[in-house]
Amino acid sequence: MRLNPSPSPSAVAAPVRIIGIDPGLRVTGFGVIDKQGQQLAYVASGVIRSGDGDLPTRLGVLYRGIRTLLDEHRPDMAAIEQVFVNVNPQSTLLLGQARGAALCALVSAEIPISEYTPMQLKQAVVGTGRAGKEQVQAMVTRLLRLNGMPSTDAADALGVAICHAHGGTMLGALGEAAGPLAARRAVRVRRGRLIG
Amino acid sequence: MRLNPSPSPSAVAAPVRIIGIDPGLRVTGFGVIDKQGQQLAYVASGVIRSGDGDLPTRLGVLYRGIRTLLDEHRPDMAAIEQVFVNVNPQSTLLLGQARGAALCALVSAEIPISEYTPMQLKQAVVGTGRAGKEQVQAMVTRLLRLNGMPSTDAADALGVAICHAHGGTMLGALGEAAGPLAARRAVRVRRGRLIG
Repeated sequence: MRLNPSPSPSAVAAPVRIIGIDPGLRVTGFGVIDKQGQQLAYVASGVIRSGDGDLPTRLGVLYRGIRTLLDEHRPDMAAIEQVFVNVNPQSTLLLGQARGAALCALVSAEIPISEYTPMQLKQAVVGTGRAGKEQVQAMVTRLLRLNGMPSTDAADALGVAICHAHGGTMLGALGEAAGPLAARRAVRVRRGRLIG
Repeated sequence: MRLNPSPSPSAVAAPVRIIGIDPGLRVTGFGVIDKQGQQLAYVASGVIRSGDGDLPTRLGVLYRGIRTLLDEHRPDMAAIEQVFVNVNPQSTLLLGQARGAALCALVSAEIPISEYTPMQLKQAVVGTGRAGKEQVQAMVTRLLRLNGMPSTDAADALGVAICHAHGGTMLGALGEAAGPLAARRAVRVRRGRLIG
């Protein structure tokens, strides 16, 4: 007797909600999408501005902002962009602290967190790791059938959520929704409880 | 009629509990002290080890470890060491994320947070910004009348708490408990609600 039979490949998967985060000390982008089977649906996106306070205050704004988003949208999983190492070490340190605050907020929600490089994001969304920010904006707008174009920070956050959705698809059924280039490329998934 | 008369300089101030944090991705030191008037008393110290998980997991261990300490000891204020910019940018980024996680835990407790450079810590504890780690360990052991010597990470955390206690003393009464050199040097206090 099989108590937990695997669903057939044609069965409709349960919808999965993904939050994408593009961390920054000044502006952190967020994007929330739903994935049902091969379909992606836009839920929300925007930015959190940390304001002009001192560093602990700004990290607190960022942390609480993401916590509020998690309470509001209740995502099943999170994807976060890996940040560039800046030429200025002090900037790298500040950016690292902002990313640490964002990760803490996600960890506190006890959902799986996956990390992707900017190149993986661009490959998944545009089909080439060398794409510019405008191309990411345009492709995110097209893939999610948006009426208006999101800001670059929000588009990057939606992009990393799409990147994760495609990664899940690839492991599950080598999906074609992402376009042939994206489908063929591997994405790195950490702690990824992949569904679909 | 004066409803809130200022206490006379000889009045015994209420005890203030300070938690000091020396953040690191692998090992984070903590130290808790009580300050009553010019007297410092040891409460607790030790280290949080983040383990071998992936980055979000390790940041989560660090964040929850500090939250647990805050729940247990209920400090009135926190002092955290500013970290060195490493020669390796990737290490700087990792250290920054660890410090961001530690700051988030402190921010969540809604207590004032002050930041001190390693040089300020050494000046306050040893009397010279060029002191070595062993000197910090020895002076922390002496100032807090400890029976055994704390580890270097715990000693640094106790040292940054002492540094903050001295800063409060200096603004309040130019105290002499810290030794003449430390008392003469300025410490930088951010968001510091200084009592004493």
